[in-house]
Amino acid sequence: MLDSLFKPKSVAVIGASTRELHIGNRVIRNLVEFGFKGAIYPINPGSDEIRGIKCYKSILDCPDNVDVVHMVIPAKLVPQAVEECGKKGVKNIIINSGGFSETGPEGIAIEKDFMEKAKKYGIRMLGPNCQGIINSDPDCRAYCNFTFTRPDPGYISIVSLSGGVAEVIHQGFSEMGVGTRFYASNGNACDITIPEIIRYYGNDDKTRVVVTYVEGLRDPVNFMDVATEVAGKKPVLAMKAGRTSEGAQAAASHTGGLAKEDLATDLIFKKAGIVSFQDEGELIHAAAAFASQPVPKGNRVGLITNTGGPAVIATDVLVGAGLKIPPLSGKTRNILSEKLFKDASINNPVDVLATGTAEHYRAALDAMMDDDGIDCIYIGLVTPFFVDTDSIAREIVEVNRQRKKPMVCNLMTDRRQWTETVDILRKGEVPCYSLPGAAARVMCALVAYRNILDREKGTVKDFKDTDKAAAEKIIKAAAAAGRKMLSAGEVYKILEAYGIPAAPWRMALTPEEAVKAAGELGFPVVVKADAESIIHKSDMGGVAVNLKDGDAVKMAASDMKGKFKTADLKFFVQKFIPGGLEIIAGAKAEEGLGHIIMFGLGGIYVEIMKDVVFSLTPVTDAEADEMLSSIKGAALLSGARGRKGVDREKLLELVQRLSRLVTDLPEIKEMDLNPIMAFEDSAFAVDARISL
Amino acid sequence: MLDSLFKPKSVAVIGASTRELHIGNRVIRNLVEFGFKGAIYPINPGSDEIRGIKCYKSILDCPDNVDVVHMVIPAKLVPQAVEECGKKGVKNIIINSGGFSETGPEGIAIEKDFMEKAKKYGIRMLGPNCQGIINSDPDCRAYCNFTFTRPDPGYISIVSLSGGVAEVIHQGFSEMGVGTRFYASNGNACDITIPEIIRYYGNDDKTRVVVTYVEGLRDPVNFMDVATEVAGKKPVLAMKAGRTSEGAQAAASHTGGLAKEDLATDLIFKKAGIVSFQDEGELIHAAAAFASQPVPKGNRVGLITNTGGPAVIATDVLVGAGLKIPPLSGKTRNILSEKLFKDASINNPVDVLATGTAEHYRAALDAMMDDDGIDCIYIGLVTPFFVDTDSIAREIVEVNRQRKKPMVCNLMTDRRQWTETVDILRKGEVPCYSLPGAAARVMCALVAYRNILDREKGTVKDFKDTDKAAAEKIIKAAAAAGRKMLSAGEVYKILEAYGIPAAPWRMALTPEEAVKAAGELGFPVVVKADAESIIHKSDMGGVAVNLKDGDAVKMAASDMKGKFKTADLKFFVQKFIPGGLEIIAGAKAEEGLGHIIMFGLGGIYVEIMKDVVFSLTPVTDAEADEMLSSIKGAALLSGARGRKGVDREKLLELVQRLSRLVTDLPEIKEMDLNPIMAFEDSAFAVDARISL
Repeated sequence: MLDSLFKPKSVAVIGASTRELHIGNRVIRNLVEFGFKGAIYPINPGSDEIRGIKCYKSILDCPDNVDVVHMVIPAKLVPQAVEECGKKGVKNIIINSGGFSETGPEGIAIEKDFMEKAKKYGIRMLGPNCQGIINSDPDCRAYCNFTFTRPDPGYISIVSLSGGVAEVIHQGFSEMGVGTRFYASNGNACDITIPEIIRYYGNDDKTRVVVTYVEGLRDPVNFMDVATEVAGKKPVLAMKAGRTSEGAQAAASHTGGLAKEDLATDLIFKKAGIVSFQDEGELIHAAAAFASQPVPKGNRVGLITNTGGPAVIATDVLVGAGLKIPPLSGKTRNILSEKLFKDASINNPVDVLATGTAEHYRAALDAMMDDDGIDCIYIGLVTPFFVDTDSIAREIVEVNRQRKKPMVCNLMTDRRQWTETVDILRKGEVPCYSLPGAAARVMCALVAYRNILDREKGTVKDFKDTDKAAAEKIIKAAAAAGRKMLSAGEVYKILEAYGIPAAPWRMALTPEEAVKAAGELGFPVVVKADAESIIHKSDMGGVAVNLKDGDAVKMAASDMKGKFKTADLKFFVQKFIPGGLEIIAGAKAEEGLGHIIMFGLGGIYVEIMKDVVFSLTPVTDAEADEMLSSIKGAALLSGARGRKGVDREKLLELVQRLSRLVTDLPEIKEMDLNPIMAFEDSAFAVDARISL
Repeated sequence: MLDSLFKPKSVAVIGASTRELHIGNRVIRNLVEFGFKGAIYPINPGSDEIRGIKCYKSILDCPDNVDVVHMVIPAKLVPQAVEECGKKGVKNIIINSGGFSETGPEGIAIEKDFMEKAKKYGIRMLGPNCQGIINSDPDCRAYCNFTFTRPDPGYISIVSLSGGVAEVIHQGFSEMGVGTRFYASNGNACDITIPEIIRYYGNDDKTRVVVTYVEGLRDPVNFMDVATEVAGKKPVLAMKAGRTSEGAQAAASHTGGLAKEDLATDLIFKKAGIVSFQDEGELIHAAAAFASQPVPKGNRVGLITNTGGPAVIATDVLVGAGLKIPPLSGKTRNILSEKLFKDASINNPVDVLATGTAEHYRAALDAMMDDDGIDCIYIGLVTPFFVDTDSIAREIVEVNRQRKKPMVCNLMTDRRQWTETVDILRKGEVPCYSLPGAAARVMCALVAYRNILDREKGTVKDFKDTDKAAAEKIIKAAAAAGRKMLSAGEVYKILEAYGIPAAPWRMALTPEEAVKAAGELGFPVVVKADAESIIHKSDMGGVAVNLKDGDAVKMAASDMKGKFKTADLKFFVQKFIPGGLEIIAGAKAEEGLGHIIMFGLGGIYVEIMKDVVFSLTPVTDAEADEMLSSIKGAALLSGARGRKGVDREKLLELVQRLSRLVTDLPEIKEMDLNPIMAFEDSAFAVDARISL
């Protein structure tokens, strides 16, 4: 529990300073000006008071218990200060200072040193190299932070390693007049982690929305577990940056981490049920609505506006994101035609006209709230000088208070002139946006969360027929021999052990045996040279396809024998199965996480159209189904252009068996089934690779 | 010339009112409060003065010439008032009132009536059913408009039919503290058109950027001509809404126009060289930068920041849009490592650290301005309380004044606290944005305009060998016979007349003739039943492919003869050419504009992957080349997966010949070459349709 950190009764500042421009002064100023309800203990052996508050020589001199200590002192003094805090019984320390693991070996050593002391005394550490926390609750008002955005009380809680982006988001709420409940930026995060804070927010009743920004995940499994747990209770909104390799490079340079493009984070967000954003502005806007609005029951939007053009823009955005703008019910249309001006448009979008009054807005709002065909309401409101927009705002607020269906408002006005209208809507917790596109995108985010709540998570199928021991034995042997690539024979035996269908095959030691094997399999066949030294078979002339009789097999195998003068040469003979739809599936290990499973159309589609999708292990049946449905060429699976569809069930099973295989055998680094030939009633891997 | 409208020396208001909430009062209030430099003449037979200004009984009583008259009177009184204005010699009338063509036949008649009178007297009309104009020039200060956003003088000029969206954009500039030069919203646009106003803005030296919003184009050819002319002189930024069919429907309902999804507008924007936006926020942000920044010479961005995370977000956006973030030159890095803090990052993005000073920013800015590898500069600036951000702002402004390379600034602050910093940057015309993604997207728009300026427009190739007369004769005959679909024979003769290569063919009247024709063409062949009554040949069994000998041809033709008992049945015999890369090309007439030419990969690609691109006639050689390069599967044209590339030159010529064909023969409504079989050294249409 992080209660004593987020709801401190007393805060001390070690390194409190009389200098205005020092963080050790600013933190005290922030606490005072924000109206902290607890005790403040500046610690500075050289001063009697700071900003009018009694100063103590040492933390040990403080008259009472201390929940939170800020440290704003040089890194090398921190371990000793932590030791003293331990003796005092301090519960939490926020280290604002830098000079630790982000700077190199010396800093890493210091961090290790103070962490040992902190653990000894059970002190929890935030940071170092961080901003700190804020709690805007009127009962607490803790501004344990050296930034400058002073939040109103609210329902959104923010957490991020990056103070810069967290503060940008925080400012965004502030500019919109939307409150923030908790704020935390934990820099190097040597102890208290992002997932721990997310879980704390999840358990906090007054937090309605959790917002986080990440550039990479330290402990992805833990993040996923916590995010899954919290996202089931309340919306978790997240943005990941460093999506491009240049962005990842920039992220690495400011965090001291490793640069990597990070597909896994997107998949973690998705699997955990996080509402994911690629634009920080959209995240800010959406959070404001999640803080005050109920979750829509579905994706059908009713629009009410007093000006046409902006509603057209909104319509484009809503429809573009898959939301529906259904016709209104006959009852709703009757009410509207009775209550609105005769020139008003009673279709969806409803246009009450620029001269539309508060009564008109109210009638339209009530009618839509009662219309079972509408799940959520988009309001466009321009403020003509000739109507009483304050009254319109009051009616909107009153309907909003019912919390029956979510609403967003595109308020188009000069906020310096229409201050009262703006204020009524703000106090009435109606999420307002200056631009129609922005308001519409917020609605799309609300619906996205509904879709997350409603989605079928599915179950991880338990295949009883898999033979883990057999597969493990092969892998252990290869690993023991120091091999990174498995031979064809090994690969296909592993497929067999996991029930992944492959074209029938035999292993042969001589050209003669190859002919015999081909005869057993039935022609035509493929022959591949198989030996440890042969990695890129086809480039080296080690593959012969569509061999139609024994002579052809013999010639091909003999030819390979002449070419590859290696003692361990064997011949992998496989039935040649052309003509199916080419599918590709694969798996790639993600450190500390599991594997990413890939599925797509093979051949030209994967190479040129990049038509592949990804999912994290373990892949559930529902996730496998979604994978098959979400490739661009999904229609090809069910048949197109006079070609019959392929066996979807077999492919679904194949993806799940592949997931099970790599989950059981984490030693597998990469695995490809490329291509799989899919037919109306079957599917076979006809080429496969496994690397360790 | 619209000078007397946009720079009036006197404005009269017919329908001036003493009632505060009347438009006839508001317009006068706006003129007065905005500081109009000319004379104001309220016209109202019942009042002596309005808002303290002498009132006249009639326009004829005004003591002097009148440049602009507002009419705020019932529609039916307008024609008579226009007549009087004519007698007075009024130059322009803005009709704010509604009740005209937007309401139905009666309103249309009134509009026609007053337009006759206006033409008689040479009066130019803005509106009706419109807001009016604004000119913020200190020499004029004309607020001939009933809206409420009071612009500072500036360099951006806005025009739109839709007052709602124009005003949203205008408010956007106002909120950013960015000035607007001219503003015009012309409602029904019965006389003065959007293109006419765009041309006026284009000729106005103080307008640096033209901004427009459209939901559809009344006269697309005129719009394109004017936009092309103006976009060659200064950036024209435009947004089109009604992109989805629901959006188009919403647009139609508020303009009284026809609902149609509108691909042509995008193509017009592109051909004219307009910088096109799909998000009004991005348009607003970009316009602010175009108003103050030079056009970048290229796409290489240098970033300077004092906080890491937001620069990561910016990097993602920039790179995602194709901009480059190159390494800095050795010289630049040397300067930075000498002048910045030792922990600062001297890579691109440069991080001067939160403690970075004005000198650090200046050093980094100067170094990047001098670095030939950098075309434009992105500044990230958070305002820590412990640095002098006013001085940083001053240095940025000073460098900005050089107008050497464009810069955008992501200013992350509380604008209520850091007012001086904000103000210095605003007055120094540094475009500032709260969010890193927004600032980065603005940079992308500046580079997009550079790309437009640099692009190869190409030339329309003049094919000397086309036979327009022959093609016209076929079309005229079909039209005379009332036919909408041309027969196969007609289609292929037209292709021949325009040098569009097709698989060799013959027309045969009997099965025997078909066998003979097939022999001449060489086997295998395709036979198609050809008659007026047969539209969907393949559905009806009227197509037989891959016929390998005379017997097969005879059987197929006889079979068709039995099936289609029509007197005009003929047999279209064509050489069967399988195995090429399937390409699709087509043309579709756009009313009042010409044709849209389509090109893409055929078969599965067009049906499932929708991999097609479009261009407007006449297609230049450069445009044809861009079409071929911009399909997703472009790599297939140059060869992939062991398959050889196809004859690009032949395809380029084919697209241009198709463009020429439909340009010469505007009667063609739709035309498809589907598929075209493309090979290494040739390409043939193997199926073609033309409808009139």
